[in-house]
Amino acid sequence: MPVNISTLHPGHLLPISGITLGVAEAGIKKPGRKDLLVMVLDEGSHVSGVFTQNRFCAAPVIVAKQHLTYSSAIRAMMVNTGNANAGTGEAGIQHAVASCAELARLLGCATQQVLPFSTGVIMEPLPLDKIVAGLPAAVANCKADNWFNAAHAIMTTDIVPKAASRQVQIDGKTVTVTGIAKGSGMIRPNMATMLGYVATDADIAPDLLQSMVRHAADHSFNRITVDGDTSTNDAFILLATGKAGHRAITRQDGAAYSVLQEAVTAVAADLAKMIVRDGEGATKFITVQVDAGKNSAECIKVAYAIAHSPLIKTAFFASDPNLGRILAAIGYAGIDDLDVSGIQLYLDDILVAEHGGRASRYREEDGQRVMNQPEITVRVVLNRGLVSTTVWTCDFSYDYVRINASYRS
Amino acid sequence: MPVNISTLHPGHLLPISGITLGVAEAGIKKPGRKDLLVMVLDEGSHVSGVFTQNRFCAAPVIVAKQHLTYSSAIRAMMVNTGNANAGTGEAGIQHAVASCAELARLLGCATQQVLPFSTGVIMEPLPLDKIVAGLPAAVANCKADNWFNAAHAIMTTDIVPKAASRQVQIDGKTVTVTGIAKGSGMIRPNMATMLGYVATDADIAPDLLQSMVRHAADHSFNRITVDGDTSTNDAFILLATGKAGHRAITRQDGAAYSVLQEAVTAVAADLAKMIVRDGEGATKFITVQVDAGKNSAECIKVAYAIAHSPLIKTAFFASDPNLGRILAAIGYAGIDDLDVSGIQLYLDDILVAEHGGRASRYREEDGQRVMNQPEITVRVVLNRGLVSTTVWTCDFSYDYVRINASYRS
Repeated sequence: MPVNISTLHPGHLLPISGITLGVAEAGIKKPGRKDLLVMVLDEGSHVSGVFTQNRFCAAPVIVAKQHLTYSSAIRAMMVNTGNANAGTGEAGIQHAVASCAELARLLGCATQQVLPFSTGVIMEPLPLDKIVAGLPAAVANCKADNWFNAAHAIMTTDIVPKAASRQVQIDGKTVTVTGIAKGSGMIRPNMATMLGYVATDADIAPDLLQSMVRHAADHSFNRITVDGDTSTNDAFILLATGKAGHRAITRQDGAAYSVLQEAVTAVAADLAKMIVRDGEGATKFITVQVDAGKNSAECIKVAYAIAHSPLIKTAFFASDPNLGRILAAIGYAGIDDLDVSGIQLYLDDILVAEHGGRASRYREEDGQRVMNQPEITVRVVLNRGLVSTTVWTCDFSYDYVRINASYRS
Repeated sequence: MPVNISTLHPGHLLPISGITLGVAEAGIKKPGRKDLLVMVLDEGSHVSGVFTQNRFCAAPVIVAKQHLTYSSAIRAMMVNTGNANAGTGEAGIQHAVASCAELARLLGCATQQVLPFSTGVIMEPLPLDKIVAGLPAAVANCKADNWFNAAHAIMTTDIVPKAASRQVQIDGKTVTVTGIAKGSGMIRPNMATMLGYVATDADIAPDLLQSMVRHAADHSFNRITVDGDTSTNDAFILLATGKAGHRAITRQDGAAYSVLQEAVTAVAADLAKMIVRDGEGATKFITVQVDAGKNSAECIKVAYAIAHSPLIKTAFFASDPNLGRILAAIGYAGIDDLDVSGIQLYLDDILVAEHGGRASRYREEDGQRVMNQPEITVRVVLNRGLVSTTVWTCDFSYDYVRINASYRS
């Protein structure tokens, strides 16, 4: 079951002026499930994105990146679930372009002004006919206060929908940031998550928007893992409609940029953590914090060695303070000149290990008390430098195996 | 349950002239389980080893490496199970040395002529008193035809003992190679396995023995993975007593070296594959073969990306030909300039994918037939060069979670 995600209510999500959303049941997934989302943007909106680094990236990822290159005036985005259109070769590209062309025809814009996204089973042909047949209903359904339904429509193995809103003040004007995401398994994003969309009514120059989406990804979706599998379809999109009425943000070193970046990153981090909390089979939410490293790269190595270890993840599932497994992971993380005698390992605020072994004050019942919690912080102090990194992950349960052993059946 | 390991009988294992083995119940593990092994070598034996690259390597690994440096005349080795003496700081080193000193006293040799090995729980103090109390019984039990009992005495979560023997002819003399190993979880050896010992009565120069142990490791224990966790205690030892009566092997480019290397590597590979077949919770034995790569490094990246993916391993457990997951793993393996349209993916001899998508001749029932088997070969043809690599792994089942969620309870 998802770990500590509060139930989403429609009223929690603030509409973004300049964007409407519509959902439909195209029949790709089983009956009764919305599986198609259309987002329509007003003229003047700017869109930036980061995409999976997987070399087998999906056809919609290839097409979306091309359309972002060709056109600075994206007018719509579409998302289907139930089929990833990945590992589908040339036919997959043609299907993705054809679906964009159909939505462009309905909206009266150019094909290259539409971005396609898909998520679901890999290596099955995209059911283009069903998508084309479903698009008119999705377009007819478009409205500004539809984020709640949109969050539902992009779910696959997700148990709960993922969405968040924040508001900040810029030039005395209220600026709103609202985002949705999906993802539960095949989660070790590399530049982006499975699918995440964050929108704001802020007015910001396109090149600054691109910096902002990268920064947000690096402090949210690029710091989570469920199972270490980087998806073929990861995409994280940040879009700005410019309707909030403040002076346009044109400098990266100004206060307005910082305020907006903080809000965008906070919404992205909220969404990323929700993906981990709803990780397939998750029963615990684990924060892995690596402090006092020489550089970010080595902190990330240690954090992911811990976050990916099946032995550590099953120990969390069992609430077993078998902490030697964490030392072992630090040891094989790949820092060649690591002096293990200088490391401290904490579980929440309990010092577990130092001087290369168990801390003298450590008592098993203290470790057990922390391990029993649904939320646990593992903190590794490398004592080699000044850099810190945080990664979020979940435990590894019977249900992870059950879910993934029966995904297609 | 272990996958296709035939039951071991005492008569299958050939003694090695110059080595006796003794086991005892020291009371480290639960009553009724042998947990202490002593191996005594005749004078003139040569010993080489490769050890874990984990920076949190265990105290016995540190001490064994020191003793191999100080002494060219190793006379005994001892292995305890139930406690890894890892993550135990300075006290762990002192315990490892003290256990060597006690065995040396019993045998009348120097402390530095004894190598210690431990396997079991990490970060618990070594029960030195129990080991010291158990050593006399193990020494008294020493005999040449005791390999069968030795293979049992080093087991931890292993379900079956692991041992193998081969004989080859050198100079018209029969040369024997016999080995034992243990390991089932925390298996992604890096230079060695959990614990492996291969002995021969061949007569071979010490520096050639060191080349041979490295070659054997790189074609056996360094090519397996169960869960991707590199242990703190991995060690693979090759020892030669020189009793077989052939001319001493002093050149690496001669036929005798090749014949012996092949036999040693074959025994090591048998043992390594047994570890995978007995991998925690394993129900399938998977061979991942990567062909036509530019170099060994990129073939290994692709092979381990597949062999470590929890999504792929759970699909094998479910016999589900969800083969898009394999394409995804190839895609995130880290080859930056990979052209996915040039790759072929086979399940046994069934062509599954090519040209970036599903092969036109592929039918789901063919993939299903292969997936139903207990032994499956995944073959990836990169079409970038001439290098091949093979890695062996197992699937990921409910029982892996059960075993590791309850290891200490």
